[in-house]
Amino acid sequence: MSALPRISKRLFSSSSLLRNRAVIYKENGPISKVLSAVTYPSLPPPPPNTVNIKFILSPINPADLNTIEGVYPSKPTLSSNLNTSGKGSQEEPVFVAGNEGLAEVVEVGEGVSGLEKGAWVVMDKPQLGTWSTSRNVTPKDIIRLPFGKLNGLSEAHGATMTVNPTTAYNMLDSFVPLSAGDWIVQNGANSAVGKLVIQIAKIRGINTINFVRPRDNLAGLVKELEKLGANKVLTYDELSDKSLRGKIKEWTGGKDIRLALNCVGGDTTTAMVKLLGQNAHLVSYGAMSKKPLSLPTSLFIFKNLVSRGFWQTRWSKENSRHKKEALIGTLAEWMAGKKLKAPEHEIVTISKEDSDEVASQKIRDVLTRVSEGKVGKKVLLRLDSTDA
Amino acid sequence: MSALPRISKRLFSSSSLLRNRAVIYKENGPISKVLSAVTYPSLPPPPPNTVNIKFILSPINPADLNTIEGVYPSKPTLSSNLNTSGKGSQEEPVFVAGNEGLAEVVEVGEGVSGLEKGAWVVMDKPQLGTWSTSRNVTPKDIIRLPFGKLNGLSEAHGATMTVNPTTAYNMLDSFVPLSAGDWIVQNGANSAVGKLVIQIAKIRGINTINFVRPRDNLAGLVKELEKLGANKVLTYDELSDKSLRGKIKEWTGGKDIRLALNCVGGDTTTAMVKLLGQNAHLVSYGAMSKKPLSLPTSLFIFKNLVSRGFWQTRWSKENSRHKKEALIGTLAEWMAGKKLKAPEHEIVTISKEDSDEVASQKIRDVLTRVSEGKVGKKVLLRLDSTDA
Repeated sequence: MSALPRISKRLFSSSSLLRNRAVIYKENGPISKVLSAVTYPSLPPPPPNTVNIKFILSPINPADLNTIEGVYPSKPTLSSNLNTSGKGSQEEPVFVAGNEGLAEVVEVGEGVSGLEKGAWVVMDKPQLGTWSTSRNVTPKDIIRLPFGKLNGLSEAHGATMTVNPTTAYNMLDSFVPLSAGDWIVQNGANSAVGKLVIQIAKIRGINTINFVRPRDNLAGLVKELEKLGANKVLTYDELSDKSLRGKIKEWTGGKDIRLALNCVGGDTTTAMVKLLGQNAHLVSYGAMSKKPLSLPTSLFIFKNLVSRGFWQTRWSKENSRHKKEALIGTLAEWMAGKKLKAPEHEIVTISKEDSDEVASQKIRDVLTRVSEGKVGKKVLLRLDSTDA
Repeated sequence: MSALPRISKRLFSSSSLLRNRAVIYKENGPISKVLSAVTYPSLPPPPPNTVNIKFILSPINPADLNTIEGVYPSKPTLSSNLNTSGKGSQEEPVFVAGNEGLAEVVEVGEGVSGLEKGAWVVMDKPQLGTWSTSRNVTPKDIIRLPFGKLNGLSEAHGATMTVNPTTAYNMLDSFVPLSAGDWIVQNGANSAVGKLVIQIAKIRGINTINFVRPRDNLAGLVKELEKLGANKVLTYDELSDKSLRGKIKEWTGGKDIRLALNCVGGDTTTAMVKLLGQNAHLVSYGAMSKKPLSLPTSLFIFKNLVSRGFWQTRWSKENSRHKKEALIGTLAEWMAGKKLKAPEHEIVTISKEDSDEVASQKIRDVLTRVSEGKVGKKVLLRLDSTDA
């Protein structure tokens, strides 16, 4: 390949002849056993009504690990079109890992409108297999971003748009009618979603009371969250302080709090829920404490509390294409306008020089670090295209 | 008064000259300390736009005890019109106990239409003070029954209509759309509400899986509930049996169960909730175990479980007069048609010969028995009118 004359290499470099590497598994199981990076021959040009996309950055989300291990309710679909340039190939279908990612349109198949080479897209179809160099996809599998980097939207913004910001937006939008000046409470406020909740609430004029774990450098975290727009930041310890109700009444002017967002569970969540007024919703999207929700029945009966969950995957299935495009458009605009920060992140690059063996090891290493909670930031994978 | 000639006594006996006895308290506290039966002078004739009603039977519901003790969220209103025949009276306002009851219209004030002497009515206004002989009320405080005893509706039916049957009806009606052939689960199935759920579900063609505490004479209870229409009756112990899921799948033909009714709480409720399918509602209306609801967060996130409560008092506040009248009409029709059984009950009579002291002691005794759980049946109070 290095023998190819320079000019032809350039000619092919952004076309369908990108050699394709993908992080795959054939069955669910422990990451170190089932996962590997495999280089496939280049994809064929996109068939009619499909486009070829090249991934720019793809996050490693905690749910990705659960999906590979087989303990997540969302199952990936088997891919058999990774190297079937010849239709008669006997290729065994595999799962390609990765649910979220930012990609660029490389080549547009016949009959596709509204997408041109260079357009930035995010995934609409869940578990599409974003930990790969490139895929041929149908236009309905993806959602086009209204603009790219040049307009202030970074690659990291684009790569992390369809899971956390949509979750934060929809939890504020779907359960309780909130107006500017209303108050909400949330725990895990320094999680990726928690920080987005703070920022989106701020944009909408909604006030947030944010709970975090007690820690050594609390002041630093409080400052950071306040800078994002948090009105109040408290620790779970302060939840058991009897004076808290009085303080909150003062802050809210006695207005009932009607929305609590929860990604923790256990006792501190019970205490947080007791701060809510009549007809409130507790919306759970995670369970970091690994403890169940424990809620006094009287809250349900006499205060009309509603406890429910939010899962962006379900929202996405149940809502129209139009609504999803509008949401992505809104988020992209806020990100470009510097109203939503991209998450702090670390980029792990699998370069084209890495052998599949090296690439596999890199992936396994970073996934191990993520699963052990050793990475405080979002990890974004960059699979550099391996030119044919 | 006993010197009045017999004929005039008869003339007055069902008029506004009924002497009024009421079970009252001046402040919340332990029943034995705060509660007493007091005889007041007869009420004045009903002022314009009111009617005088005489209570026939009034249940003692568990919530009545909590209300008197001051630990129930629903507060009674102070009554100061018990003996103010003279407007300038310096009577201290008191609480009259009792929330539910069947009464008969005795005298109709000017300007009232649609209510005539002899009509049976139930209470619409909560905490109206039904543990008394008679009251002057406005027509909107009460709901007229479409027919009385002669049409198959017993006094016990009428007296117990506005709390338990409405709760059972509305829980089946308000949360999940249910069609004939659908399945629901409930615990505390042998409670008053549980038995009504079975019967109303039966009328609607909805199948019920009913959980009860293990007990010695289980077969007898199973038989009783099956006779009411229960499709399946199981004990909480059977909830932990792994084969149960398979059995239920067989019964339901694999159809998702989308409604669970709970008056127990604690572990067995958690186990019951795990039998539910996607998009189900857990509706709690009691907490007999005194343990909180403990629910895995994953059920909310991935199965879209919704946990909420039902309180008939709130339903009644939030729904139109028209809807409430229609509901009472439906229930009365079912009761008269022998489709809904009156609860097993014991009638405690405070006769007109009882002194206030004797009456007070009778009331306290029965309330103590109720609070100690020594009465397996519904207790209905009959305060015989003490003719003037």
